[in-house]
Amino acid sequence: MKVLVAGGAGFIGSHLIDALLEEGHDVVCVDNFFIGTKQNIVHLTGNERFTFYEQDLCDLEAVNRIFEKETIEYVFHLTANSDIQASANNPIIEYQNTYSTTFNIVECMRRNNVKKLFFASTSAVYGEKMGTEVGEATTPLEPISYYGAAKLGSEGLISAYSYMNDMSVLVFRFPNVIGPRLTHGVIFDFVKRLKDDPSHLRILGDGTQSKPYMHVFDLVNGIMRFKDVPKGVTLYNIGVETQTSVTRIAEIVCEKMGLSGIPFEYTGGRGGWKGDVPVFAYDLSKIHTAGWRATYTSDETVAHTVEQVI
Amino acid sequence: MKVLVAGGAGFIGSHLIDALLEEGHDVVCVDNFFIGTKQNIVHLTGNERFTFYEQDLCDLEAVNRIFEKETIEYVFHLTANSDIQASANNPIIEYQNTYSTTFNIVECMRRNNVKKLFFASTSAVYGEKMGTEVGEATTPLEPISYYGAAKLGSEGLISAYSYMNDMSVLVFRFPNVIGPRLTHGVIFDFVKRLKDDPSHLRILGDGTQSKPYMHVFDLVNGIMRFKDVPKGVTLYNIGVETQTSVTRIAEIVCEKMGLSGIPFEYTGGRGGWKGDVPVFAYDLSKIHTAGWRATYTSDETVAHTVEQVI
Repeated sequence: MKVLVAGGAGFIGSHLIDALLEEGHDVVCVDNFFIGTKQNIVHLTGNERFTFYEQDLCDLEAVNRIFEKETIEYVFHLTANSDIQASANNPIIEYQNTYSTTFNIVECMRRNNVKKLFFASTSAVYGEKMGTEVGEATTPLEPISYYGAAKLGSEGLISAYSYMNDMSVLVFRFPNVIGPRLTHGVIFDFVKRLKDDPSHLRILGDGTQSKPYMHVFDLVNGIMRFKDVPKGVTLYNIGVETQTSVTRIAEIVCEKMGLSGIPFEYTGGRGGWKGDVPVFAYDLSKIHTAGWRATYTSDETVAHTVEQVI
Repeated sequence: MKVLVAGGAGFIGSHLIDALLEEGHDVVCVDNFFIGTKQNIVHLTGNERFTFYEQDLCDLEAVNRIFEKETIEYVFHLTANSDIQASANNPIIEYQNTYSTTFNIVECMRRNNVKKLFFASTSAVYGEKMGTEVGEATTPLEPISYYGAAKLGSEGLISAYSYMNDMSVLVFRFPNVIGPRLTHGVIFDFVKRLKDDPSHLRILGDGTQSKPYMHVFDLVNGIMRFKDVPKGVTLYNIGVETQTSVTRIAEIVCEKMGLSGIPFEYTGGRGGWKGDVPVFAYDLSKIHTAGWRATYTSDETVAHTVEQVI
């Protein structure tokens, strides 16, 4: 089938495109290189089943022209501002790049009678649950970041558009996802700091902030596995059972860089920055019961990513 | 204190302004007369504690200029597209008038250091729960209308803005609210049809669609009673325990118009129109426990409203 990958030049989107092409689909990629990069899709140049549009998804009518031109059967929507820390001081980034892009995509689907959608949601819709395991039915949903807010709003849009237009939608709430082609985040920060000055490593918070880090290969495998869903919205938490603390990430970075005895200097406090959820755990029983598990542990995922970054 | 009422020329907003002035506050009203009317606020002309701005809340920078000029302590946000049926074929109405207005309001509050907010949310965030009683913690939230989607998105925004900026927010999820100054809806439709042609009354659905109709006087009383809340988001379902079916509304309209023996012609089916939630009931124990109850029953509310309309 012909599919559209919105945000396809991004970290996760570009891996998903590789898997979709591998499975024999024709791929239309739309990206504005705001966070995505040409480097991520350069290997697809010349592939006749790959079409690229450099286009900001914030422009409804421009996006609609792509939908009118291409006959899309399935949309994979991975467009978002993925740098939560950056939007903390400028929330309009999330309004435009995370919420409005979703509105434009589902509105173009409505206008052009496209019925199948995958949506990349996030653990950030839950907010701060003090380390208790959150399942798909956990309530209330109280995002503490503008990113989580825009993603929750997007889920609401998808619920209504799906009902009103008989769409079939798969929604995954992602944890932290890392791996090859990652462009920012704590691993990058640590590697950069140690390259600049290997005498010590400054760590935001007290280092105990702990999250599940999922490998992008596992995530893409899950999307490909579950992408055919019945009418309505099918929602899963997806992730790994294990977690990695910030201090453990620092240890893995030092180890992979061949550095030992580096003093860690903690800034203190619970979270790294306001809007961050310092401790987080998923209840994954729904997706496990459906027969899927991640193959990389959280620590293995961090180690593999560090190897790519250094 | 000086308060800003967004959507203050609307049906509910204008009643709230009356109560706020009565309690001694200075009121800045912002409305674009898209749904609100001059008639609703004409009685406030010349009141020196009342200031009016004719302004579309969709324009962030224009709204921000009002916040910069007036020193606002509390914002009552009642701006929305309130005609759900109208947006069913044109969802962009909700994106602009229900979601973007919320973004602009909380963003202006952030920029101008305003910490207190009341937000008018809705039962539509719950979606279709097949008549089971929905409480504040009911999950999942699966709106089936674009209106409900935009309100759920607004709740998400408010959650994040409240956390990030130490705001104190009261959120009420409204049921159907009616009473004096109402401008559209089933009561209007029935009165109009019977005035046009009293030989019969066409009723969408099978007439059993049943909802709690709350009196705007009770709603405003509840807002005034609970408006001082601690930091964070305080959320209540607000409503009446009783319900009124569409057939009962038709009977009350006929009775009040002095018409008897009118044949009711049902179009059939469960709902009146797609996106409507045909059967709906609230669990009100949280607000009852807090010591508040509606004074009008649903049928009394309908009867009082019909008297105003005919």
